[in-house]
Amino acid sequence: MAEKEEAYAKREKCYISGKIYPSVRVGMQKVNLTPTVTVTDGEKRMEENEPVYIYDTSGPFSDPNAKVDLKKGIEKIREPWIESRGDVEQLSELTSEYGRKRREDKSLDHLRFEHITLPRVAKEGMCCTQMYYAKKGIITPEMEYVAIRENMNCEAMGVKTFITPEFVRDEIAAGRAVLPANINHPECEPMIIGRSFLVKINTNIGNSATTSSIEEEVDKAVWSCKWGGDTLMDLSTGANIHETREWIIRNSPVPIGTVPIYQALEKVNGVVEELTWEVYRDTLIEQCEQGVDYFTIHAGIRLKNVHLAEKRLCGIVSRGGSIMSKWCAAHKQESFLYEHFDDICDILARYDAAVSLGDGLRPGSIADANDEAQFAELDTLGELVQRAWEKNVQAFIEGPGHVPMHKIKENMERQIEKCHNAPFYTLGPIVTDIAPAYDHITSAIGAAQIGWMGTAMLCYVTPKEHLGLPNREDVRNGVITYKIAAHAADIAKGHPAAAIRDNALSKARYEFRWRDQFNLSLDPERALEYFKQGHHTDGEYCTMCGPNFCAMKLSRDIRKMDK
Amino acid sequence: MAEKEEAYAKREKCYISGKIYPSVRVGMQKVNLTPTVTVTDGEKRMEENEPVYIYDTSGPFSDPNAKVDLKKGIEKIREPWIESRGDVEQLSELTSEYGRKRREDKSLDHLRFEHITLPRVAKEGMCCTQMYYAKKGIITPEMEYVAIRENMNCEAMGVKTFITPEFVRDEIAAGRAVLPANINHPECEPMIIGRSFLVKINTNIGNSATTSSIEEEVDKAVWSCKWGGDTLMDLSTGANIHETREWIIRNSPVPIGTVPIYQALEKVNGVVEELTWEVYRDTLIEQCEQGVDYFTIHAGIRLKNVHLAEKRLCGIVSRGGSIMSKWCAAHKQESFLYEHFDDICDILARYDAAVSLGDGLRPGSIADANDEAQFAELDTLGELVQRAWEKNVQAFIEGPGHVPMHKIKENMERQIEKCHNAPFYTLGPIVTDIAPAYDHITSAIGAAQIGWMGTAMLCYVTPKEHLGLPNREDVRNGVITYKIAAHAADIAKGHPAAAIRDNALSKARYEFRWRDQFNLSLDPERALEYFKQGHHTDGEYCTMCGPNFCAMKLSRDIRKMDK
Repeated sequence: MAEKEEAYAKREKCYISGKIYPSVRVGMQKVNLTPTVTVTDGEKRMEENEPVYIYDTSGPFSDPNAKVDLKKGIEKIREPWIESRGDVEQLSELTSEYGRKRREDKSLDHLRFEHITLPRVAKEGMCCTQMYYAKKGIITPEMEYVAIRENMNCEAMGVKTFITPEFVRDEIAAGRAVLPANINHPECEPMIIGRSFLVKINTNIGNSATTSSIEEEVDKAVWSCKWGGDTLMDLSTGANIHETREWIIRNSPVPIGTVPIYQALEKVNGVVEELTWEVYRDTLIEQCEQGVDYFTIHAGIRLKNVHLAEKRLCGIVSRGGSIMSKWCAAHKQESFLYEHFDDICDILARYDAAVSLGDGLRPGSIADANDEAQFAELDTLGELVQRAWEKNVQAFIEGPGHVPMHKIKENMERQIEKCHNAPFYTLGPIVTDIAPAYDHITSAIGAAQIGWMGTAMLCYVTPKEHLGLPNREDVRNGVITYKIAAHAADIAKGHPAAAIRDNALSKARYEFRWRDQFNLSLDPERALEYFKQGHHTDGEYCTMCGPNFCAMKLSRDIRKMDK
Repeated sequence: MAEKEEAYAKREKCYISGKIYPSVRVGMQKVNLTPTVTVTDGEKRMEENEPVYIYDTSGPFSDPNAKVDLKKGIEKIREPWIESRGDVEQLSELTSEYGRKRREDKSLDHLRFEHITLPRVAKEGMCCTQMYYAKKGIITPEMEYVAIRENMNCEAMGVKTFITPEFVRDEIAAGRAVLPANINHPECEPMIIGRSFLVKINTNIGNSATTSSIEEEVDKAVWSCKWGGDTLMDLSTGANIHETREWIIRNSPVPIGTVPIYQALEKVNGVVEELTWEVYRDTLIEQCEQGVDYFTIHAGIRLKNVHLAEKRLCGIVSRGGSIMSKWCAAHKQESFLYEHFDDICDILARYDAAVSLGDGLRPGSIADANDEAQFAELDTLGELVQRAWEKNVQAFIEGPGHVPMHKIKENMERQIEKCHNAPFYTLGPIVTDIAPAYDHITSAIGAAQIGWMGTAMLCYVTPKEHLGLPNREDVRNGVITYKIAAHAADIAKGHPAAAIRDNALSKARYEFRWRDQFNLSLDPERALEYFKQGHHTDGEYCTMCGPNFCAMKLSRDIRKMDK
């Protein structure tokens, strides 16, 4: 058997159907475990081990029965649900001027995704957001989907769960959770971001001026979903980002986020001062109509607060934050993002795009953590999130950054208080600045803690942070590191079914069921690879301790003696 | 310039001398930083950046002026201090029977370190331990050494510190800190393990039955010191461990720890039931006379507690713990380690070897954390540590293991209470069991937290944990990961000078002094390597964001605008 197949030999893609909506089919990985064999007085006894279900973000790419053609895009599983609500209509023409220009540019034909359809928009006078339906007391198929997904293993293992479709609905209605689901991204498998749910992780991809091609970016997107990325931000700033984004969205089973100010800045040739509300507005609509599920918007940058970052060791380290701060300082004027925030929400509501309120003044060194600049912006974000909710726009709040361990708790507590329980989405935080090339680790230490305290989604960091763009291996290392942080937080928070996988793996370890261990692990391929590097046997020990010094073997001897 | 030299070009080995004892010379790395250059109205201004001192565990190996010949061993810097106290004498013959047998075996000549000298022992009726001197109110050169070492940067930066030689002495006298310093390991650079000091990390090396040679093990020892290992445990269980150990100790600038029961078990051909006090006693003396600085001794395994591990998911996972438990169960008898604990302490006192009270019943899965077996043993360790102190033997306590985040605090609080403030030395803890091949990360998350709460030393975990023996790259990854955890804990604990290095690196980052950044970082080589993988310039941005999207660059623009 090939090494890769061996690593996944006991996994099987399976689907659980909805009870309210039979068309809901939630994909997951089922790990079929080997029985436990015991021999007592020469008598062999077999004992079944229950299969374990693993939350699966890889979509159709891990389903051997699904035929995926990247050129056509993956299946639009949400399309019938969106259509059946009767609240949206297909446009007869793109709203975005830039979108039309790109489409009509023949020189881009070779780059263009070929099956582009015209986008949907909410019908005049209607609202299509999950928050709107939740407030009306309606459970959508998307809500039932996430309820099933969050309860992986509960039913099979008889674990009681509080996560019902009704609970999902109520959390969304209250603004405590976000279900990103742009009506123009019907390929997306619903997931939920909120403090009462499993901690999620976001991964970033994106080329900068000189690097990467479309193929590479789509490949990285699929790759990050394979390892467990729950959402994906496309942070591209290079050429052809419009076309790249189309390819990514059409092939993404996870929600896509972007920072529209990046593309807006490209449109004014990188001259910050020339940014205008009109350019930004067109960019936002362009991306809403492609299907972006959430936007980081740095509307919390206020003219009166820009000077607060002056005192810092590292100034402003958020790209969007530094762009908007420079704009405010140059024009001596309140930013158009803040001024037009209600207009922005009106646009987002028409597509059910969510807003991720960006922390443009997040600290970029532990010396700057929890300072006046950071917390002044958080107050503004708390004001804005309520304005978003008034328009039924789903919203969450971005957080730091670089924070030493003893200052993490204050971040979480303040965010909950000032932002009225909106979900928190943090980058790390990085807990020490002395380890460039290992910032996936410096940040996972902080991420696990803030996740435990209540952060709903963790933005991954790769080993290349501060040094360059991540390659495939960096993405894999970043994702797995953050899956660890998120899962450790789920366990510490007491999520009802989180430790089931740990316990199944530990039992397999104790019983020397090596293949079961690997199939249950976050990265079966690497675990198997390392195991094979030793002169292992498949028996009751490994090269780490050798046969005479295997504690687990000795420990089992003691149990036998006692019997 | 070669890549490696470039990574360290701004580092310089330097020494700070003692004030009480001028013969004390504490080696450290001085990082000479580039000045900050600012241009205002065409006028160029230079501003010096103070050098930063880095705690250095690499001994003479990083000193270009020191000539190291592995065949002769490194300089015996403590020899004059040991001699001048007049409390020890050189033996005329090895005490250990096994030691003599090995020495006289001609077939081992080719393996043997050639400059073996006869060991020292305390004179009859005298005590030579650091704890003894501390209790007498005497400051030894070793104590002044660690006071200087712990205060890296404080003097230069004008930071107030409470760590004086007197403070070091008082902490050792109270048993709150351990200064491992076997009189037969004069090559060792003094260091201290205690809650009021910098958090330390231990690294493990060791072959098992089928792997590794002497050269490889010595090379790994030097390698782990290079990256920052504070102590080194030789956990070898294969052939020639006596000879390998001699080579390692003679070349080690850091304290060496072992688990003597491993070698004792080899001497009875791996048959646990045949272990005796006599075999163990001879092994302990053999290793004391070679210069081992601390011993893990699983004397906390009590006959009455062995059955407690039966209820567990993963039984007993400590090698020493499983050996002693099996012995107790087989003989239905209290273990010889517990029964002879006073005799053990009498032996250790004669060489100033410290005891690391092993946690033989540590949990091996998060499901087993904080259970009755674990805490019953901790109570016994609390009893034993006081018996060690009565004999002036320095002692610390080992801790888990596998513990989910929400159960870590109880471990630390109980240890402090039950073990009377003796230093805690933990393995991880690993906070989730689902990531074999990434357990350096699962455990660093726990290690950072327990270090912050008061653990004095963290035992590193490599990516190969649970799967096989670590190679050089695994050791490097494990050490750096644990340096991160320890340093993050130092910062969170509020160690007076811990964040100086972070702040210097952040300032260099903000000012695009790339080389300064790399030289200040934990792994300059890897940071430089990753940086060079991008199409970087050495100017004011990197490939991560490209020139138009560099937040730090924009942030500096804003500052300029304001001026």
